[in-house]
Amino acid sequence: MEQLFTILESHYEEMVSIRRFLHENPELSFQEIHTPNYIANYHRKLGLEVREGVGGRGVVATLKGAKPGKTVALRADFDALAIQEQNDIPYKSKVDGVMHACGHDGHTATLLVLAKALVAMKDELQGNIVFIHQFAEEIAPGGAKPMIEDGCLDGVDVIFGTHLWAPAPLGDVLVRNGAIMAAADRLEVTIQGKGGHGAEPHHSVDSILVASQFITQLQTVVSRRIDPLKSAVVSIGHFEAINPFNVIAEKVELKGTVRTFDEQVRTQIENEIELLLKSVCEGFHATYEYAFTRGYPPVVNHKKETQFLADVACQISEVHNVIECSPLMVGEDFSYYLEKVPGTFFITGAKDPAWKDAYPHHHAQFNFDESAMLIAAKTLGLATLKYLKQSKK
Amino acid sequence: MEQLFTILESHYEEMVSIRRFLHENPELSFQEIHTPNYIANYHRKLGLEVREGVGGRGVVATLKGAKPGKTVALRADFDALAIQEQNDIPYKSKVDGVMHACGHDGHTATLLVLAKALVAMKDELQGNIVFIHQFAEEIAPGGAKPMIEDGCLDGVDVIFGTHLWAPAPLGDVLVRNGAIMAAADRLEVTIQGKGGHGAEPHHSVDSILVASQFITQLQTVVSRRIDPLKSAVVSIGHFEAINPFNVIAEKVELKGTVRTFDEQVRTQIENEIELLLKSVCEGFHATYEYAFTRGYPPVVNHKKETQFLADVACQISEVHNVIECSPLMVGEDFSYYLEKVPGTFFITGAKDPAWKDAYPHHHAQFNFDESAMLIAAKTLGLATLKYLKQSKK
Amino acid sequence: MEQLFTILESHYEEMVSIRRFLHENPELSFQEIHTPNYIANYHRKLGLEVREGVGGRGVVATLKGAKPGKTVALRADFDALAIQEQNDIPYKSKVDGVMHACGHDGHTATLLVLAKALVAMKDELQGNIVFIHQFAEEIAPGGAKPMIEDGCLDGVDVIFGTHLWAPAPLGDVLVRNGAIMAAADRLEVTIQGKGGHGAEPHHSVDSILVASQFITQLQTVVSRRIDPLKSAVVSIGHFEAINPFNVIAEKVELKGTVRTFDEQVRTQIENEIELLLKSVCEGFHATYEYAFTRGYPPVVNHKKETQFLADVACQISEVHNVIECSPLMVGEDFSYYLEKVPGTFFITGAKDPAWKDAYPHHHAQFNFDESAMLIAAKTLGLATLKYLKQSKK
Amino acid sequence: MEQLFTILESHYEEMVSIRRFLHENPELSFQEIHTPNYIANYHRKLGLEVREGVGGRGVVATLKGAKPGKTVALRADFDALAIQEQNDIPYKSKVDGVMHACGHDGHTATLLVLAKALVAMKDELQGNIVFIHQFAEEIAPGGAKPMIEDGCLDGVDVIFGTHLWAPAPLGDVLVRNGAIMAAADRLEVTIQGKGGHGAEPHHSVDSILVASQFITQLQTVVSRRIDPLKSAVVSIGHFEAINPFNVIAEKVELKGTVRTFDEQVRTQIENEIELLLKSVCEGFHATYEYAFTRGYPPVVNHKKETQFLADVACQISEVHNVIECSPLMVGEDFSYYLEKVPGTFFITGAKDPAWKDAYPHHHAQFNFDESAMLIAAKTLGLATLKYLKQSKK
Repeated sequence: MEQLFTILESHYEEMVSIRRFLHENPELSFQEIHTPNYIANYHRKLGLEVREGVGGRGVVATLKGAKPGKTVALRADFDALAIQEQNDIPYKSKVDGVMHACGHDGHTATLLVLAKALVAMKDELQGNIVFIHQFAEEIAPGGAKPMIEDGCLDGVDVIFGTHLWAPAPLGDVLVRNGAIMAAADRLEVTIQGKGGHGAEPHHSVDSILVASQFITQLQTVVSRRIDPLKSAVVSIGHFEAINPFNVIAEKVELKGTVRTFDEQVRTQIENEIELLLKSVCEGFHATYEYAFTRGYPPVVNHKKETQFLADVACQISEVHNVIECSPLMVGEDFSYYLEKVPGTFFITGAKDPAWKDAYPHHHAQFNFDESAMLIAAKTLGLATLKYLKQSKK
Repeated sequence: MEQLFTILESHYEEMVSIRRFLHENPELSFQEIHTPNYIANYHRKLGLEVREGVGGRGVVATLKGAKPGKTVALRADFDALAIQEQNDIPYKSKVDGVMHACGHDGHTATLLVLAKALVAMKDELQGNIVFIHQFAEEIAPGGAKPMIEDGCLDGVDVIFGTHLWAPAPLGDVLVRNGAIMAAADRLEVTIQGKGGHGAEPHHSVDSILVASQFITQLQTVVSRRIDPLKSAVVSIGHFEAINPFNVIAEKVELKGTVRTFDEQVRTQIENEIELLLKSVCEGFHATYEYAFTRGYPPVVNHKKETQFLADVACQISEVHNVIECSPLMVGEDFSYYLEKVPGTFFITGAKDPAWKDAYPHHHAQFNFDESAMLIAAKTLGLATLKYLKQSKK
Repeated sequence: MEQLFTILESHYEEMVSIRRFLHENPELSFQEIHTPNYIANYHRKLGLEVREGVGGRGVVATLKGAKPGKTVALRADFDALAIQEQNDIPYKSKVDGVMHACGHDGHTATLLVLAKALVAMKDELQGNIVFIHQFAEEIAPGGAKPMIEDGCLDGVDVIFGTHLWAPAPLGDVLVRNGAIMAAADRLEVTIQGKGGHGAEPHHSVDSILVASQFITQLQTVVSRRIDPLKSAVVSIGHFEAINPFNVIAEKVELKGTVRTFDEQVRTQIENEIELLLKSVCEGFHATYEYAFTRGYPPVVNHKKETQFLADVACQISEVHNVIECSPLMVGEDFSYYLEKVPGTFFITGAKDPAWKDAYPHHHAQFNFDESAMLIAAKTLGLATLKYLKQSKK
Repeated sequence: MEQLFTILESHYEEMVSIRRFLHENPELSFQEIHTPNYIANYHRKLGLEVREGVGGRGVVATLKGAKPGKTVALRADFDALAIQEQNDIPYKSKVDGVMHACGHDGHTATLLVLAKALVAMKDELQGNIVFIHQFAEEIAPGGAKPMIEDGCLDGVDVIFGTHLWAPAPLGDVLVRNGAIMAAADRLEVTIQGKGGHGAEPHHSVDSILVASQFITQLQTVVSRRIDPLKSAVVSIGHFEAINPFNVIAEKVELKGTVRTFDEQVRTQIENEIELLLKSVCEGFHATYEYAFTRGYPPVVNHKKETQFLADVACQISEVHNVIECSPLMVGEDFSYYLEKVPGTFFITGAKDPAWKDAYPHHHAQFNFDESAMLIAAKTLGLATLKYLKQSKK
């Protein structure tokens, strides 16, 4: 434990420089080339067994301990977003319109340097460690699923992962048993009316009115149809009916999102939305098309492993608070790993104490306090060592 | 009379081919360049005195009869609409997103060929004929007003005009003393909410939802607020909130139209719409901008001239019914001409007998029975000749 | 004529006292007992031949003139409404929840005193007069139909009737050829949800919410579905879901009315309402019952008799304006009489000049200027005398 | 323990007959006369010290054990609801419009027979037992508060209570540390429009339409305005606008309930509802009155006592599952007891295994499996005995 922390601290500068290098060279989801190459080279230099192109563009490196034991997987994602960076920093993105605006650069740097530290402790290691570097977390269907199908969890007993989180203060670690992140689904609706002259409503079917009634009624999905003790959001963010002012709109296109934490509620909402859509259209002589595209399932942490991780975090001196948090409404494909093996996903606070507010994730001025990477590395590393040691007993 | 009809019939093919040429080459209101040029050339070839750029983009051609007399004006409009044609016809619009979806191509062809016929009868003519080719009828403030201000009615004693009308059967001519067409006003609304993440409605103000509630409540203007014995229409034809699916929309832009026949109802509706908009926005923590732009006043036909035209129409063998119609909810800037000189505006039925239903005007599949042009030409031509002859007596 | 007016004027106090007596003692439609009894006694004292229980609860009194001639019928209705009077007047209704809030007390007083005046002129009378006192005008199927079936129009040549009208100024008489009053239909809806605890919406179907959505959507019948040039009203006046505050309502009962002037629109509205009701219920897992009960047909005045009445009204000095009015949206079973015999129904203005606005008919504070009764009596009486005299010629 | 269970089982028939007697004779909250009298007599016959009229209409009976010790309070409520029973059962309510539709009849029968059993074990008893029979649980401000103020908790060390729960299967006992039941507030709204004739909407303000729009918009309080991770319910259960079918309703009265678990959300909802009400009324020329009456605070169980009760429940052979439940959205004034003394409130499953679904509480066909009373009595009784015994140590 002391040894791990000392090694990590001594390599903190490297961690920062890796992170900044990646920040300058971001790559979009499903288009990653140089990043996985860089990662693979790093692990190879550490002497680890490396598998590239896992599930497409993923990298998996395995560290075999000197002594037999269980296998722990640690995961970091490495894709960036289609955002034009607006930070004025020395390591600003060099790629036009692409930015690490969610901290995956930090996740990767954390995991690479943690691997270096654990390699140094190899002789003590009672078991194995799998470093999963995942591509394409930002865009469903994501990289986790194909990487699992391609065997990245084979032989794995437990998995840990974290997200650096700018809205939470540095020094906080947020944990939660059960659902910590939401299912994030996508909704697309076309309402087909009958276009016509704006002065002749009785010869037309006013698709804008139908869509307005639909959106009005949609509020009842959350307010009346689901269990009030279950959380859910239904939002329509896009409404398109571009026409001259004096017509009646032939059709409307809507797009929106649904967030849930529970498979039953998710399915119920998918069905209730269509029921409402169908009935409103029938009542107004309109027709519709409806597509409900499932994004990632909720991230559901396992009880024992979450408690274990919380206990571990309490032992890191830089961690001031270990907090049981509310679930987050955002989606994450870490969910797929937790459907296969036990484990937990936690949040590492990364708001610089000097900031009053952090820019939200996915904002063009997003950034995080880099020392959060050290906290994440210590937590993940200590959890790994403790787990392997304790499992031997 | 016989002569006029014979000439018109012998040039029917030309009328059709002019109409189809214009149909293939539509130009938006206030953007007409080639159409007025084409019209001016046509009249010039007939040997008429032509004035271009009247009131902006209008064309006025004058035929002086061999004998002195009164002056009759005939008017046709020539602008098209911002609609993507969806007809599968050989003469489909060649201009992306622009379409003659209201029949102004037919009005122009009718008037040009009628001019040719009347030129041929020039020697008999007891008086003068002014052919008013008007730009920009579709969009207020319209072309009529500036053309009048630019002198197009100078010396004119009476004016006639018609609209080819696909909903009315071929062979019907519709007339009406008093208001035949509505005041057509324009509505523009911006609803300003507060944008945000689709998963966090409580931190945002969902402008799409506010607009949907507004549109839902807007129905009560006609259903509850105005005298049910007064006619009115309120239509929202444009709803714009173009966003990624997973956000909450910052703002919405709406455009629509209001139709009335009565100044008091018009003002009441203007006020009630704002009252609703203001209250809905207050109830949802949103703000708004509201513009109500008064368009054309109602088209109010003159009694004597309407009766005269009805009598004339009865003498055309292709006209099977001359009907006193209900007022139409559409707007027309023919109103301005009738505020200056006596006259009447009538409707020429143009529904192909083979069709069960016609597509409404302003629909992407709008079309009309081209033989209605011949009926319109005969009616306008005969009215002109009779008026000039009779006025001499 | 002079004689008639003098007699009526001298009995004006009696007219007022009869009206106030009736006002204090209102009886609901189809439950009238004392009112017809009172009327019959009054006519009997005048020496007229009286038939009671006509068509159920109607009273018909016949005055035979000294000379032979035609037969004129005059009709007054005498039922009251289920409204709790809120006027603070000495002659306020003594019956809890029942009120003469439509002026039928005035109609009856007018006709009784007019009978007294005409009896006094009996010797001059060239023909007969039938006084039709009708029960149950307020509620379809009404009293007119059974009274006609029971012979109240036998031998009648012409019929006149009027309505005292508080919204119109005293001194105005309103006439109209053709449809003067609407078809007045009745709507009854039960929405069956699933009751439950107010805290558990997901286990219930909230019938109050379903009904609210239905009423919201119902506005689109008039605003979007019917021809804006056709007049129609759809009103829900009764909404009943009486429950403890903390439940979800098992069911809702709605009652309302539909007014139209056109059979096609009437049928269209009947169907569109059910379409909306059906679709809203489906979208919310509710069920419904729907009854659309056709009430009175439109009151369609006869041309010749309407002109005759207008001319008569011009001769009454208290009548300042005889106006051709717009049709009224209210229903009246006077329609049935006019389907059988020629005649006309007119409106007698009854707004006290001191009032800025009158309370509308059927309002708990409704009242009218009692001197309108004198105008109504003079107009009906003069029309009767002139008609009988002129028919003899 | 064995003795307790044997006695209770041998008196199960009595428990059922008491429950059915109370079911046939329900009394509304704050109107209870015969029920408390019956309860007091029962306890008196057992030889207990009885205090009547506690806090108004409550009954408190005290059993003093032979040996000194702590004091345990057990609470049952005994009021009924304003619901017309629709069950077809031999013991159907004999009181028109009043029904034990929440199981308080069962609570009372359970506690009475448990008292009889404990009296039989008096000689072994190391301490005292207070039987709190509470009036008026259904309607805030409730009976608990005045009963506490009147001393019903004086000297009490711990309190236990349960609710028979038809939605949960017989054999389940539901426990929860922390908030198990919601804040239950009451909402009363009057919307004042302007009454009038159903055919003249433009002269009136249609309060039913305004209320419908308000209820439609009310859905956005839960769907958009509060944090989706916080639970809340807003239900309107009463809508009153009793009128003839052909009027426009002068006013509407609404009643409803709001459920929350969080003071900030509670206040936010109170304010947002008024904001919506105000804005809708303004938009429709209506006015309003608004009363938001805070009901019971959340029922917050104590940790140690909850765990204790859960352990006890595990020892009852008829209890198949002891489940940590989600909080319930219903309100309960048991909250007041727990603000004063430690204790816990638990749920006793009462769904007959033969039923597919149970009718919800407060439904006109609500019922429960009576054998749940035996489970409740055993659990409360065993908890009491164990607590007294253990506290002596």
